[in-house]
Amino acid sequence: MQPTVTIDLIAAARTRLAGHALKTPLLSSPHLDDIAGRRVLIKAECLQHTGSFKFRGAWSAISALSDQTRSRGILAYSSGNHAQGIAMAARAFGVPAVIIMPSDAPAPKIQGTRALGGEVVLYDRANESREEIGESLALDRGLTLIRPYDDPQVIAGQGTCGLEIAEQASELGIQQADVIVCCGGGGLTSGIALALEAHAPGLRVRPAEPEGFDDVARSLRSGKRETNAAQSGGLCDAILTPSPGELTFPILHRLCGPGLVATDDEALRAMSLAFQHLNVVAEPGGAIALAAALFRKSEIESDTVICTISGGNAAPEIFARAITRH
Amino acid sequence: MQPTVTIDLIAAARTRLAGHALKTPLLSSPHLDDIAGRRVLIKAECLQHTGSFKFRGAWSAISALSDQTRSRGILAYSSGNHAQGIAMAARAFGVPAVIIMPSDAPAPKIQGTRALGGEVVLYDRANESREEIGESLALDRGLTLIRPYDDPQVIAGQGTCGLEIAEQASELGIQQADVIVCCGGGGLTSGIALALEAHAPGLRVRPAEPEGFDDVARSLRSGKRETNAAQSGGLCDAILTPSPGELTFPILHRLCGPGLVATDDEALRAMSLAFQHLNVVAEPGGAIALAAALFRKSEIESDTVICTISGGNAAPEIFARAITRH
Repeated sequence: MQPTVTIDLIAAARTRLAGHALKTPLLSSPHLDDIAGRRVLIKAECLQHTGSFKFRGAWSAISALSDQTRSRGILAYSSGNHAQGIAMAARAFGVPAVIIMPSDAPAPKIQGTRALGGEVVLYDRANESREEIGESLALDRGLTLIRPYDDPQVIAGQGTCGLEIAEQASELGIQQADVIVCCGGGGLTSGIALALEAHAPGLRVRPAEPEGFDDVARSLRSGKRETNAAQSGGLCDAILTPSPGELTFPILHRLCGPGLVATDDEALRAMSLAFQHLNVVAEPGGAIALAAALFRKSEIESDTVICTISGGNAAPEIFARAITRH
Repeated sequence: MQPTVTIDLIAAARTRLAGHALKTPLLSSPHLDDIAGRRVLIKAECLQHTGSFKFRGAWSAISALSDQTRSRGILAYSSGNHAQGIAMAARAFGVPAVIIMPSDAPAPKIQGTRALGGEVVLYDRANESREEIGESLALDRGLTLIRPYDDPQVIAGQGTCGLEIAEQASELGIQQADVIVCCGGGGLTSGIALALEAHAPGLRVRPAEPEGFDDVARSLRSGKRETNAAQSGGLCDAILTPSPGELTFPILHRLCGPGLVATDDEALRAMSLAFQHLNVVAEPGGAIALAAALFRKSEIESDTVICTISGGNAAPEIFARAITRH
């Protein structure tokens, strides 16, 4: 029986994460304020351990298991960021981690996962189901599957990012803002939304997605879980999911929206601006919220926006292209 | 009459900086620990406002002036990072800032200074003295010159970075470590050294410099202020100073050493590794301490090193070269 995701589950996750996850800074630059035409604050989760917010959810879920269950090992499927979060957290607990990754995942993410001690199993994103491979492996080896977003303890872990945003906004005297969150399956978005509902109700969460993969924005409009036509493609590998999660969508529907959409090209420009003015590395999917803040200004009304840079595990060639051409 | 730089002056600077300067995070990656063969923690001052620690000293010095003196305006000379720190702090106080910059300073730093409202005066680094130009301008226009490192309130401001390092090390249970600091004129290095002397006496400061510009390392060996043969050249523009400062050297000599030296090529490799494993942008001069930690291992004995990444205002072409070739 899975627990319900509540603010108490998020608070408990925060206690387990204390001293293990980083409290990431809220960055800003007058140059970005000028471009956006409003105050822009950036929650730099690309600085989190393993380079993305995923470490929070991974640690939360693994630390919530009983010693006996955990010791048999962890299984995860991921395009790369959840993989690295799980691998590093599992290693810290001294338990094995098997990670199912698409064969077209960025090479640095596959290498990064292996270097953290994860056993990587590659699959064909177009023709195989990672869920099926995962469930069969879990059964065979007694591993515990930790889903990338449809897991209450994972959502609770991501929600700790929202607790920090609430505190950091309060320290700056911010009562009202749009909080734009890079959104794939909705784990980070729904976790932040629950944390803000409890601690900063004037902060409204708006999911940001890449053009062509705007399943969450469409689902929020229609009120039911919509699916993307394409399953892969584009630069934002970290947040390409077929549809909002089963657990995450009811939370997103109750608390978030409307969704924002930006193009891959706008994500590259946002990466370049984050390089120039914040000195942080964003990957394309991690830059989509900042892209929406900077280039979809007419769809935003609040004086202040807070954007997540959710991950920074960019391939060097793509990053070099972004900063030299944009 | 200038105040003496003491721990009390640093504490007072911290009070003035509260709510204005960022408390930068202490980052880490198991990949970097593996390369260095010891625990490596990175004080990411590249995330500070204007992209380097220089904002601390600038804010400290400008905020310490009387209203009347400050209102006449500020003058500074700088290759770029002090310039941007001064420009942003002066703008926040609503006073003019004139910045004397070498004509060969990186274009983004000149543009960044102008975009922050600074009036930029360019000079020829090989044939003109920035000190002479500065003193004459200050006299003509009633501006207050804020030197980049030989100013007690600037050193005190940089020392606030050391207070944070002392606290962050203590939270991690670290009692003993080498603290490797990117060193030009010695403002950051001496400020951190004074803060650690008072609050973390087991942490020893070691200046890091680029090969060919190791005036501080040589001065620490000889006991007197040595000068570099070359005045410019190489990639580490941010930390190319002719010799240790008059005010900083006695502090460096009493508290710091031995110095560490790394090459420009090692700095580029460190930039690439900081990109891959920390998702931060370091400029060459800002990466020299990490380069020393990773590639001059035999000169370090402590189990833990803490390195500053002192600045991140890298030119895009140089950064792209670092991450694609190294």
